Amino acid sequence: MKNIKLTIEYDGTNYHGWQYQHDVNSIQEEIEKALTKVTGEYINILGSGRTDAKVHAKGQVANFYTTSKLPAERFKYALNMRLPRDITIVNSQAVPLEFHSRFSSKGKKYKYIIWNNEMPTAINRNYSCHIINLLNIDEMKKATGYLIGTHDFKSFMSKGTIVKDTIRTIHSIDIRKNNGFIEITIEGSSFLRSMIRIIVGTLILIGKGKLKKESLPDIILGKKRCLSGPTAPGQGLYLEKVFYWQKYVLT
Amino acid sequence: MKNIKLTIEYDGTNYHGWQYQHDVNSIQEEIEKALTKVTGEYINILGSGRTDAKVHAKGQVANFYTTSKLPAERFKYALNMRLPRDITIVNSQAVPLEFHSRFSSKGKKYKYIIWNNEMPTAINRNYSCHIINLLNIDEMKKATGYLIGTHDFKSFMSKGTIVKDTIRTIHSIDIRKNNGFIEITIEGSSFLRSMIRIIVGTLILIGKGKLKKESLPDIILGKKRCLSGPTAPGQGLYLEKVFYWQKYVLT
Repeated sequence: MKNIKLTIEYDGTNYHGWQYQHDVNSIQEEIEKALTKVTGEYINILGSGRTDAKVHAKGQVANFYTTSKLPAERFKYALNMRLPRDITIVNSQAVPLEFHSRFSSKGKKYKYIIWNNEMPTAINRNYSCHIINLLNIDEMKKATGYLIGTHDFKSFMSKGTIVKDTIRTIHSIDIRKNNGFIEITIEGSSFLRSMIRIIVGTLILIGKGKLKKESLPDIILGKKRCLSGPTAPGQGLYLEKVFYWQKYVLT
Repeated sequence: MKNIKLTIEYDGTNYHGWQYQHDVNSIQEEIEKALTKVTGEYINILGSGRTDAKVHAKGQVANFYTTSKLPAERFKYALNMRLPRDITIVNSQAVPLEFHSRFSSKGKKYKYIIWNNEMPTAINRNYSCHIINLLNIDEMKKATGYLIGTHDFKSFMSKGTIVKDTIRTIHSIDIRKNNGFIEITIEGSSFLRSMIRIIVGTLILIGKGKLKKESLPDIILGKKRCLSGPTAPGQGLYLEKVFYWQKYVLT
């Protein structure tokens, strides 16, 4: 028995998200089907976390156990031959048996891309969120100071989610503009359901001048979803990287 | 009667190219259908040139004549409401009656994007050409010196094309690598059929070490298509911009 870690890139446009769901397609299901073809086994893969419908990933991570004789580093080739072209296994490697793509993680990096222009973009329509109003990037950048650090992010979690505690740590938020695209990169220890997209939705309100950055402390302290901005749409979001403690990655 | 110039962005993935063709879909046909809905007229638009199947554009240009009362600058909004999301009118403006998007042009800029990595890319699969072998960018850059300038590019034109003369001028070729993507930007006065994609295919051979850059003068002088490299696939190509003489653009 060995434990294999996959690093996965996907275009989420045509999927209902990472997680297996009955009757609709998912990234997880496609990879599990391909694994069955490669190994002859019915394998349940463990993802580092869910991504929602239309959300993309450049570095999603999942692991699985198999008795297959195929060397771990060959799995990427064998799977890519059998996967649809919008899912790519970027890397496959053997990891210690105790490695778990979710519980062994020490953090994640997400990117959100906004197309900030009066006219829509044809080529990037499924890979960015279109905002017509010219956003004030300086105000958005200054607002990040209120969010970085350890806070109770209950106001930035989708309603109806049940978790033990809503305290999370954001290590950094970087915002930059590049040829009309605004890229917001967020790194943190872990995130609540929809947390990145609600943070982005709130930053967009600030960029539009509809919300003052100085109200962020009250939004955080209020611990109510209705205080923060709307959830930004899925197609602008990318799971860039999952970070692990060194001991789990080296074999 | 007025003459209106459109600047158009499109994702060529799901089209058989710019030019109207019976029985298959084309960018031209989609825009003409939308124009009929807006004006009630049957309008034939004049493109700056064809793009092939799967080729993209950020700045294709076309013009058309209409008696519609709608102000020229409103056409972009009216058309975008009626066009599929993979075609966007970026700009619409009134131009002098003698303006012709093809014959008034003084040059064009194209970009070609290569994904140079052992593994394929899921997200950019339709927006780049995948080359597994690590390309030698320095050799490719040095090779551009043989192509820039005025030459007979008959060796870089697809077979079976009939044109009066095959002498063309390339103003610049810029090659840069960015996060695994190689971007080749080419500007010139005008181009022969498939010329950009054959130049890129030849540069790829040089980058792979299968062709010496020093053989380019003989390839040019030989004036035979079989001497140059293969035609690089359409999905990596972008028509970036069409340039016009100032007198045609100002109204």
